[in-house]
Amino acid sequence: MPVPRVRALFFDVFGTLFDWRTSLIRSLHAFGARSGVACDWDALVDAWRGAYVPSMARVRAGELSWRNLDELHAASLDELAEHFGLALGAEERAWMVGLWHALDPWPDVAPGLARLRESHLLSTLSNGSVALLVALARRADLRFDTILCAESFRHYKPDPETYLGAAALLGCEPREAMLVAAHNDDLHAAATLGFRTAFVARPTEYGPHQDKDFTASEGIDIAVADLTELAGILAHA
Amino acid sequence: MPVPRVRALFFDVFGTLFDWRTSLIRSLHAFGARSGVACDWDALVDAWRGAYVPSMARVRAGELSWRNLDELHAASLDELAEHFGLALGAEERAWMVGLWHALDPWPDVAPGLARLRESHLLSTLSNGSVALLVALARRADLRFDTILCAESFRHYKPDPETYLGAAALLGCEPREAMLVAAHNDDLHAAATLGFRTAFVARPTEYGPHQDKDFTASEGIDIAVADLTELAGILAHA
Repeated sequence: MPVPRVRALFFDVFGTLFDWRTSLIRSLHAFGARSGVACDWDALVDAWRGAYVPSMARVRAGELSWRNLDELHAASLDELAEHFGLALGAEERAWMVGLWHALDPWPDVAPGLARLRESHLLSTLSNGSVALLVALARRADLRFDTILCAESFRHYKPDPETYLGAAALLGCEPREAMLVAAHNDDLHAAATLGFRTAFVARPTEYGPHQDKDFTASEGIDIAVADLTELAGILAHA
Repeated sequence: MPVPRVRALFFDVFGTLFDWRTSLIRSLHAFGARSGVACDWDALVDAWRGAYVPSMARVRAGELSWRNLDELHAASLDELAEHFGLALGAEERAWMVGLWHALDPWPDVAPGLARLRESHLLSTLSNGSVALLVALARRADLRFDTILCAESFRHYKPDPETYLGAAALLGCEPREAMLVAAHNDDLHAAATLGFRTAFVARPTEYGPHQDKDFTASEGIDIAVADLTELAGILAHA
């Protein structure tokens, strides 16, 4: 049976499209400079991102009722602020959580997505909230055909409901859908459900602490250095 | 208490943005001419649209399990084909249902939305399916920030879940959200939930059979002739 053409591309967002670490560190250093608040901002950012998977795991396990990523980010910030000795007012806390809505994309993302959209349906498939993803896309002037994410299905990746729900809403069989991500675990979860997969290398996502996802692991369909390379490959597929 | 600024505009789609009747009639007349199939196509289109509200009512009442509008369109076409003495093969049937994915917008829609998007978040809020709305938006080159619809919430308008769910996903209170529609009943359902409302006159939507929605009824916030007029009003709001 021939493999059908990929019709829809689904994009992981944090790390794959947006350089969250550099963006957050820059914003928090600027905050420190103008407010006089001292903190090891780099360590705070890494710890904040470090709380991401465990916080979602509590929702996925049913230990916490459904809540979106903004709420998880706020709760982990509260714990980290205490740990880092950071006294945050309500307004500063909301501003910091909102920094995840104002990240900078990697430089290949805008031109790569524009080319890919000529031939494919494009959607996000992120654990971020709808409002967060809409804000990121607007700020970076990225054009998706729709925004789909964990919040659309009330299931965080890698729950199967998120991948399968997204393909179904765009009218695709899983094998007509491709997940594009910088993370092998996300790609393998999608592949198990029948998705095609494309690995995009983001070797500086975690800065000096990156210890995985330098290359695609076995079983990933396509591995590229950036989205313009992916657009070149898919244009001839 | 001052009324907060409207942050997100939600658009009804069939009739409000797209001239479904003219589009379907044109496509079906062309089909009849090239296939030699004779039918009162105008009457078929009106009857097909006439089946829309009753078919959704059966889902809303729980008489039918959730199914999206493409499935409802296919089921009503089957009944109408029998009534009109139309023998449709599987491929023709799928093509006809797909005509709802290929409608033409009213001429003010593309420039109006582009202006409105400069200052507001834009989303669909339609009873159409996600895949249908994505196809309509791509074909007409309309840029929404996301696609939300009955299928996102598994509730057809005017169920409150659809309006309230859409505002919540964009991070808005209902009073920060405005429904834009050509139908007074849709607008009143939204207003009851706290939405702001804008009526757009589409006096030829139903062709010679239009018998309502020529003007906004009482309690609608804004009434305009088209989306460019709405953009002018909201730019100064």
